[in-house]
Amino acid sequence: MGQHLLSIDDLTNDEIEKIIHRAKYYEQYHPFIRPQFQNRFVANLFLEPSTRTRFSFEIAEKRLGAEVLQFQQSVSSIIKGESLLDTLRTLESQGVEAAVIRISEEGLLRKLSEKVSLKIINAGEGRIEHPTQALLDLYTIRKYFHTVKGLRIVIIGDISHSRVAHSNAALLKRLGAQLIFSGPDALMDDSLEGTILPIDEAIQNADVVMMLRIQFERQKMNYISSKESYRAEFGFTRERLKYLQPHAIILHPAPVNRGLEMDDEVVDHPQSKIFEQIHNGVWVRMAVIERALEGNLRWESLSNKEMYGIGISGFREIS
Amino acid sequence: MGQHLLSIDDLTNDEIEKIIHRAKYYEQYHPFIRPQFQNRFVANLFLEPSTRTRFSFEIAEKRLGAEVLQFQQSVSSIIKGESLLDTLRTLESQGVEAAVIRISEEGLLRKLSEKVSLKIINAGEGRIEHPTQALLDLYTIRKYFHTVKGLRIVIIGDISHSRVAHSNAALLKRLGAQLIFSGPDALMDDSLEGTILPIDEAIQNADVVMMLRIQFERQKMNYISSKESYRAEFGFTRERLKYLQPHAIILHPAPVNRGLEMDDEVVDHPQSKIFEQIHNGVWVRMAVIERALEGNLRWESLSNKEMYGIGISGFREIS
Amino acid sequence: MGQHLLSIDDLTNDEIEKIIHRAKYYEQYHPFIRPQFQNRFVANLFLEPSTRTRFSFEIAEKRLGAEVLQFQQSVSSIIKGESLLDTLRTLESQGVEAAVIRISEEGLLRKLSEKVSLKIINAGEGRIEHPTQALLDLYTIRKYFHTVKGLRIVIIGDISHSRVAHSNAALLKRLGAQLIFSGPDALMDDSLEGTILPIDEAIQNADVVMMLRIQFERQKMNYISSKESYRAEFGFTRERLKYLQPHAIILHPAPVNRGLEMDDEVVDHPQSKIFEQIHNGVWVRMAVIERALEGNLRWESLSNKEMYGIGISGFREIS
Repeated sequence: MGQHLLSIDDLTNDEIEKIIHRAKYYEQYHPFIRPQFQNRFVANLFLEPSTRTRFSFEIAEKRLGAEVLQFQQSVSSIIKGESLLDTLRTLESQGVEAAVIRISEEGLLRKLSEKVSLKIINAGEGRIEHPTQALLDLYTIRKYFHTVKGLRIVIIGDISHSRVAHSNAALLKRLGAQLIFSGPDALMDDSLEGTILPIDEAIQNADVVMMLRIQFERQKMNYISSKESYRAEFGFTRERLKYLQPHAIILHPAPVNRGLEMDDEVVDHPQSKIFEQIHNGVWVRMAVIERALEGNLRWESLSNKEMYGIGISGFREIS
Repeated sequence: MGQHLLSIDDLTNDEIEKIIHRAKYYEQYHPFIRPQFQNRFVANLFLEPSTRTRFSFEIAEKRLGAEVLQFQQSVSSIIKGESLLDTLRTLESQGVEAAVIRISEEGLLRKLSEKVSLKIINAGEGRIEHPTQALLDLYTIRKYFHTVKGLRIVIIGDISHSRVAHSNAALLKRLGAQLIFSGPDALMDDSLEGTILPIDEAIQNADVVMMLRIQFERQKMNYISSKESYRAEFGFTRERLKYLQPHAIILHPAPVNRGLEMDDEVVDHPQSKIFEQIHNGVWVRMAVIERALEGNLRWESLSNKEMYGIGISGFREIS
Repeated sequence: MGQHLLSIDDLTNDEIEKIIHRAKYYEQYHPFIRPQFQNRFVANLFLEPSTRTRFSFEIAEKRLGAEVLQFQQSVSSIIKGESLLDTLRTLESQGVEAAVIRISEEGLLRKLSEKVSLKIINAGEGRIEHPTQALLDLYTIRKYFHTVKGLRIVIIGDISHSRVAHSNAALLKRLGAQLIFSGPDALMDDSLEGTILPIDEAIQNADVVMMLRIQFERQKMNYISSKESYRAEFGFTRERLKYLQPHAIILHPAPVNRGLEMDDEVVDHPQSKIFEQIHNGVWVRMAVIERALEGNLRWESLSNKEMYGIGISGFREIS
């Protein structure tokens, strides 16, 4: 029985570990795996524009051998007034087993998940959840650090409107990270536990600097007086690279507003792992789709020895 | 030699029976069939918006192993003023063997079919034809009744603008059904043979209640004074469920305007087979695509005994 | 190591010959070749509308067994202000090995090609380059003539705004053709070497008549006083068929503005090879994609004897 992925909170620590483990298996062996999901259908329903995440899921699905249906709102019968529930029930009647959904409305996915038998994968939900992004960020962090426990992870930008921030905060807090937030006061989120610091100090203290995208489309821009002043006060500018510790890594969910939240020199800095995050997203999503289609992931696919042998350590130390 | 499917009238009774038979074969054995049409190309040209039917065809094509090209008017060179004939001739020059077309203009498909060698499958044509919908409705009806002959089939709603009604009326009349129509006087179609009854009486008399979608986009809404009054006078409301015979089934081509032509309680009623229709559509369309690519369908793929053994009877009794 | 295809000028004569040779191999043997690029990804990024060329590439890619990603500007995150460079770096991080790009901006593709590791195939660039169109035109010409050397090739229409004209002129000139241009004075291009003749005389002298599409979308129409006067003065009308030599062939990149640059009788004339060009495009693009994914094409796949045996001669005589 396949499983939904609606929220980071739905995953046990053991399940998180299995997804990371399985993703590493796919990264390592993808040229050799057989297309295990041939003749099985997954639909990608992106009700908000997306290229990167949509392609990441599509590549993951196709590497697994699944058949992919693309749903684009502008050319769909949602314009006929059809509800999303009826669309999902239609898809499952047609034999579709999983739906990857991006949606701006918050809370709808969970309600839908109780009424359908196909499995829903949350690919971005309003301001609240983006679980596969948090999982791929975790995967990337784990490539550079033995464990998340005790890591000082700084999240910088518009915390309050960011689903990336919310899913990551939930995941990393649970795994024992020490969270620090930075950004305009009006864009902080009181509901999240953590320290708030000015950006210079935040970077100085960081093992991981997680920058957020300024979401022009999802917030009132009157929080921000001007791009120049935002960059100067809250952006990761080239001048601020001097605060970065030599072992720290820089993350961003992409696409970057270059020259706003990050300067080119920071995006392209050797300690920036932005394109590696994108690379890692494919393997993590392969694991998430396998979980949606097959249910609980198996441990036995890759021995601990193999995992250690390829440069990742600490994989069983999560708690 | 593959064959067009432009109209129900083009099919002999024997061909209809073969399509139903073959669809049942695909429903029964689809997990085990090999992808027989690998490296063969089908194009889906939906010149009117569609999700359900487009996905149904796409899934059918992919289950057969065919390669699928998606054509969307908004991003195509029809905006360059290219004619549909030149588009089809282009596609056939590129090796495409069949085109599934939805179009509002009536009569064009037949003219085109005489000038191209690729095979055209009508996926909805103006107000006049939707042959695969009628075939999947027949398939669904045949799952519940031994034969169509003598069945009282009630079609309710906007008959005059409905291609579903026209294709179904042509098919079911020919197979011996007794047709009853119901709906606003202005939306009846004098050219169709059958009895016209008020909705309560129509439902009381029905073995099959076939509801139609109110096509906001294809008619002048001034036929309808208000949604509330339409629902009260012509809709299948929860109150009217009391008229439904215990053996009768309810069909609708979907998507349903819930609360207009049908109440939620009717859509989700145990005797409603709406999502089963959608399910059946995939198998019927697999047969239609096979016919387009290969020509006449074979009988021998499934024995009569097998067909009877899986709960369908009367399959050879058509006349 | 795969290779970009940005411009005809990047190809050596030997490489051109190999592409033609390989295309013939695919035309001859495509039903029997195995899908050699399974689990390898190509993205089609058409930033200008296209049906014909996009489908041609998609079919070529799928015939090779590659996985295809479709990128449509209207639903992409380019609307988020993401640069094309970041899109390409994203795609290559996700495992995409080649990108087929159509773009109106001139010169950008070359700059991008120096910054990415995936291979770029130019599918139409502003007014300057459309190398696969020129290659498929060459392939078509070579089916009817022993060699390009000495052929009188007439290009008629809006030379100055046509990327088809520019790529073809560069290719055919180099291979020894004698170029003649015809069309409105304001739409000639002084930078191209060749004779300018009135259309009647041009057709009389032609071994190959290459008509261009009037690009309403890419030029100021005030060059043209009216459609009627353009057709009369510069179009290939039915009346001008009398000037056509019996051995000459007519080409057009399509889609044709019927009744403007060409009359129906010319499009559908036996000496018109327009739909054969479209057919040939698939094989040529298969060779170009193989080159992008694998690097230098092999000679050994088809013997000269086989090539001659199937009606093409002069294949090694290019110089």
